[in-house]
Amino acid sequence: MTPVFRRPAHRCAAIAFFFSTVFVLSPAAQVQEFSHHTLPVPAGLTFTEGKFRVNEAMLVGGLGPVGSRARTAAVRFMERLAGRTGLFFRQDYLTALERPENSSVLFKSERAGDLRPGEDESYAVTISPDRILLAAPTDLGIVHGFETILQLLDADEDGYFVPCVQIDDRPRFVWRGLLLDSCRHFMPVDVVKRNLDGLAAVKMNVLHWHLTEDQGFRVESRVFPRLQEMGSDGLFYTQAQIRDIIQYASDRGIRVMPEFDIPGHSTSWFAAYPEYASGPGPYQVERKWVVGDPTFNPANPHVYAFLDKFFEEMAGLFPDPYVHIGGDENNGRQWDANPDIRRFKAEKKLPDNAALQAYFNRRIQQLLTKHGKKMMGWDEILQPDLPRDIAIQSWRGRESLYESARRGFSGLLSNGYYVDLCQSAEFHYLNDPLPDDAPLDEIQRRRILGGEATMWSELVTPETVDSRVWPRTAAIAERLWSPAGVRDVDDMYRRLDVLSVELEELGLTHLKNQDMMLRRLTGGRDIGPLKTLVDVVQPLQGYKRHNQGLTYTQLSPLTRLVDAAAPESRTARRFRRAVEEFLASPNPAAAEDLELLLRRWKDIPDALTPLIRESPVLAEIAPLSEALSTMAALALRALEALLSGAPGDQNWPEDLGKALDAARASKAPAELAVAAPVEKLVKAVLLKKGEAGRDRRGQY
Amino acid sequence: MTPVFRRPAHRCAAIAFFFSTVFVLSPAAQVQEFSHHTLPVPAGLTFTEGKFRVNEAMLVGGLGPVGSRARTAAVRFMERLAGRTGLFFRQDYLTALERPENSSVLFKSERAGDLRPGEDESYAVTISPDRILLAAPTDLGIVHGFETILQLLDADEDGYFVPCVQIDDRPRFVWRGLLLDSCRHFMPVDVVKRNLDGLAAVKMNVLHWHLTEDQGFRVESRVFPRLQEMGSDGLFYTQAQIRDIIQYASDRGIRVMPEFDIPGHSTSWFAAYPEYASGPGPYQVERKWVVGDPTFNPANPHVYAFLDKFFEEMAGLFPDPYVHIGGDENNGRQWDANPDIRRFKAEKKLPDNAALQAYFNRRIQQLLTKHGKKMMGWDEILQPDLPRDIAIQSWRGRESLYESARRGFSGLLSNGYYVDLCQSAEFHYLNDPLPDDAPLDEIQRRRILGGEATMWSELVTPETVDSRVWPRTAAIAERLWSPAGVRDVDDMYRRLDVLSVELEELGLTHLKNQDMMLRRLTGGRDIGPLKTLVDVVQPLQGYKRHNQGLTYTQLSPLTRLVDAAAPESRTARRFRRAVEEFLASPNPAAAEDLELLLRRWKDIPDALTPLIRESPVLAEIAPLSEALSTMAALALRALEALLSGAPGDQNWPEDLGKALDAARASKAPAELAVAAPVEKLVKAVLLKKGEAGRDRRGQY
Repeated sequence: MTPVFRRPAHRCAAIAFFFSTVFVLSPAAQVQEFSHHTLPVPAGLTFTEGKFRVNEAMLVGGLGPVGSRARTAAVRFMERLAGRTGLFFRQDYLTALERPENSSVLFKSERAGDLRPGEDESYAVTISPDRILLAAPTDLGIVHGFETILQLLDADEDGYFVPCVQIDDRPRFVWRGLLLDSCRHFMPVDVVKRNLDGLAAVKMNVLHWHLTEDQGFRVESRVFPRLQEMGSDGLFYTQAQIRDIIQYASDRGIRVMPEFDIPGHSTSWFAAYPEYASGPGPYQVERKWVVGDPTFNPANPHVYAFLDKFFEEMAGLFPDPYVHIGGDENNGRQWDANPDIRRFKAEKKLPDNAALQAYFNRRIQQLLTKHGKKMMGWDEILQPDLPRDIAIQSWRGRESLYESARRGFSGLLSNGYYVDLCQSAEFHYLNDPLPDDAPLDEIQRRRILGGEATMWSELVTPETVDSRVWPRTAAIAERLWSPAGVRDVDDMYRRLDVLSVELEELGLTHLKNQDMMLRRLTGGRDIGPLKTLVDVVQPLQGYKRHNQGLTYTQLSPLTRLVDAAAPESRTARRFRRAVEEFLASPNPAAAEDLELLLRRWKDIPDALTPLIRESPVLAEIAPLSEALSTMAALALRALEALLSGAPGDQNWPEDLGKALDAARASKAPAELAVAAPVEKLVKAVLLKKGEAGRDRRGQY
Repeated sequence: MTPVFRRPAHRCAAIAFFFSTVFVLSPAAQVQEFSHHTLPVPAGLTFTEGKFRVNEAMLVGGLGPVGSRARTAAVRFMERLAGRTGLFFRQDYLTALERPENSSVLFKSERAGDLRPGEDESYAVTISPDRILLAAPTDLGIVHGFETILQLLDADEDGYFVPCVQIDDRPRFVWRGLLLDSCRHFMPVDVVKRNLDGLAAVKMNVLHWHLTEDQGFRVESRVFPRLQEMGSDGLFYTQAQIRDIIQYASDRGIRVMPEFDIPGHSTSWFAAYPEYASGPGPYQVERKWVVGDPTFNPANPHVYAFLDKFFEEMAGLFPDPYVHIGGDENNGRQWDANPDIRRFKAEKKLPDNAALQAYFNRRIQQLLTKHGKKMMGWDEILQPDLPRDIAIQSWRGRESLYESARRGFSGLLSNGYYVDLCQSAEFHYLNDPLPDDAPLDEIQRRRILGGEATMWSELVTPETVDSRVWPRTAAIAERLWSPAGVRDVDDMYRRLDVLSVELEELGLTHLKNQDMMLRRLTGGRDIGPLKTLVDVVQPLQGYKRHNQGLTYTQLSPLTRLVDAAAPESRTARRFRRAVEEFLASPNPAAAEDLELLLRRWKDIPDALTPLIRESPVLAEIAPLSEALSTMAALALRALEALLSGAPGDQNWPEDLGKALDAARASKAPAELAVAAPVEKLVKAVLLKKGEAGRDRRGQY
């Protein structure tokens, strides 16, 4: 579990890269010190002498029996390698992998891996100039190993190569998942598949598929077809599609755990079956983003008979050992208002709604056990008398997770991994489910299975969802796979930028949909100025977007500038770093690079105003544009003052405050990600002024 | 059929737009003279006074019974309108369209349209300041009408609006299709669906789905499952997926006609059933781009029994009245080599292989008739004794098509619409299936049903296919829908540029995948210089790419610069236009704009060389980059000479020739689309020099 690799030296982002849309790969350093970009970083990695040359004659072969998972992984490996290098491999890798004796890339696993938590996912890669050997106890390791080899691809004047290396790798946590909410907004099959490819690329192994909600029932039931007929607006997965997705995931070593959220979050079920709700109907699919009152009636015996049949059907459809029953955010209103339920509570001596829900959960858990499934749920399902084979997913936080571990329950962390909230990759990256000082004993520590990124879909559509998941989820993947000591934030960002581009080959749209959305916003006009703005804008973090005056529903367009903006501005991150470097050592050369950027921002209203006039949908960004310009002007004056030694303007703090307020007043609803570094620059002048005790006015 | 609309004045592309990635919408001109961008242009369109304001309160409602096709069309209309305008419509258009009495957008059709050639697709749109009325005899017209209204969306200082207008529209031809080849490269369901959306956007009504080939058998047969098991590498459409796609197409007013290519082009069938081939097996899926020898054995009675059952199954799966049997390019080698077949020909008194194939086709046609289907095939199937309800698709050309029309057969034109050959939109646009002077009488003219764009997929993948289909196929759509007199090429290009961006909202990747591909080529480095080059590069037209030294197969990567290049360079088109304008009236201002561009091209090797060094896959573009630079230098000197009146350099023709040769020597395999206008500039100097009879040397 200890990292034994030699970390290569990495280079700081040069200021010139501000204007490139993507980060620049560092050229390979001396032999044995490759600046690799594996992500997640392997548990053990040691570079050795030499390079394995990738060329047309390369042959891939499996040693021993090659099952479907390893074979398809090898095919994808060849396709992606061909795509990146443009090499016309001579091998017909679609139908026949070459006999091992001739192969230069050999893979071997002892058996097919079981898709269950705790299965062996380890692998070893040994690359010598003549041969790549990928060996793993199970074919899950083969899948992971091929991804690592692809991440090692490099080039020099002689062509493409993979550096010679010895890798021994295994995950730190057994459960590394992404929750995808297909309910608030439906996510078509191709969205699910391309995200499965993304998960495989960063060695995640669980798709937690949120399939029922107040706002939609997304799975075909053949036993109760009215569920999807009445509850989905026609937007649901057929069982054939679900089986296809499960197979696709399985090929990539990924479990698919379904979530059917009960007893709350269940309005869409009641569109077809109002009789199972705790309050009188009729019901229809909820369009608003509310935690609905509608809740299953735990006092109605028909509810259990119904759910018994439903779970029986779903248990046959989903092979995963776990079924997630949600169990969160039942507000109890319908239960309180229903006299039958009040009577039921009294009869059963259930003192409150929490006890009633515990009763309900026990009944459900028994049903699931009957159908061969373990139960999982959010923090709320935790009750001492549930059997210890259930698992808890914590949205509340580590304390809640540790509490359940101490009580003997396995669990995983989602708090801190809510990628829909548009927080930084750094924030997610440093959120460790099990730091060294976690107040747990060794047995309790083993109950911490891992974590899950959660992609709730109130504010995303198939067009934007990838941009909220990627590349930040890769930072979570590394936290859950790599040794705990791998925590270098700058190096994570360096590798994340490279990975982000690589993820595009899987069809992910996180980068390419931005320009497309800007083109729609401008009605086909030049998007250049808008791109300059969107590059330094971030969506408001957390749930703040819901408090900007507009009430979002399932039908609201998510096509505005804020939707096109990446959750985390890379330009702002680099600007911040450049400001820090300048402040550490103010010099004209560094100032020049900053000035180039700042002048561009200062002039942005001139460029944007005509666009805003032609596209009414852009009206909301005018305050952001003005605020950016004001900030840039202040920063330019601050730079000048710092260079010249002249002190700052008295009014600066006030001007800056006004600009920040103006930006906040935008309905965009986004924030300027460069505000903090600008503030830092300005404050540095004021500090200097304070130090010098002078009162001259800076000029720009 | 006569165009009665007033064509609005349109503006020439300004030179400043060279650098924008997309064309700029002309702002609305005076009332009643809107610069609209409907494409295809309606048969009748007259602007009237006023504007219909689009706002949150807008309600859409259906008059009379609203079937599923019209309802889903209305839903898509609202979604796309919301997406473009950012408006939060208050109506819950997913589940309930408002009652008509309150609605400001009203649609009404008398009945559901039948998806067969010749069904009524007409519609009328009347827009007044208070109301939009969309009326059509069938719901096919409703689908078309909503697309037209979306294309009329405009904006002014008061927000979004649709200009008041009266439209009476109907198609010129009843058959307006796209052939999609899912065999050479498999095209997943989402690729098919997004292209169906594209077809609907330009009012095309047939997806001709090429499903079996030497290189793959792409449809699930439940009667003969070994067909897809042995013949598809696992890449085929399940029957559930096919039904889903047919429904998706039907919602959009599009027929789905399957093609099962027999007796040739059939290697993949024989992977499972070698006994039905005319030569000895075994067979496996063909990987190379050859017209294979393997051919069904017309002398084997079991072949007809087998195909009878197969077509029975497919007739149940595909509701379209037509089944396309291909019938093209049977080279006869297997027939000649088989003594049984030679004997069979003698017995049946079939003088040659054409007669034998005619025999085969008659048998197949009888089978299809039995299963309720009409037969369609390529030119080769034309035989006088086939019944007149079959239809001919002409890849050979108009003469062949007219010949079949004179013999009494219906047919459609594909020659000139091969979008895979990377020809210009103008070329396709001016290719009329039935010009006024076609040598046909009135009855024969009615047999010309329309045409089909053909997207053969030897050299495209799901990543690039959209860029070969769109936007050029829209030019074909207009040729087949709009009145014959609509032939203004410049205006077509103006509208095509706008449409191209609108098509992106349907998920089409023709624009956005280019940058993605460039990012992969540079390994994440700045793509700017590469974009400058790719913007003036075009893939070699026709089949020339196969003659550049590399042998393409099904496994070859299609990820190089040529694959990222658009089939038609818009930058080159505008450059050509600017050169023409400059030559018509040389002046320093016009020269300045050209110079800006030319200097950029001249410097391109400096910018590209480092990229090429880091990415071996880019090595092949160095000659193109050098040639572009040389041409730009020559053009700059020519500009200077033309402005100053100084005559040209003696060596210019030779230098230009060298540069062109160098470009041609590139293995990229692409051509510089700006070569012709550069040549024009240079020749203008030489001409001038000739006129002046002087021999001074121009300098730059």
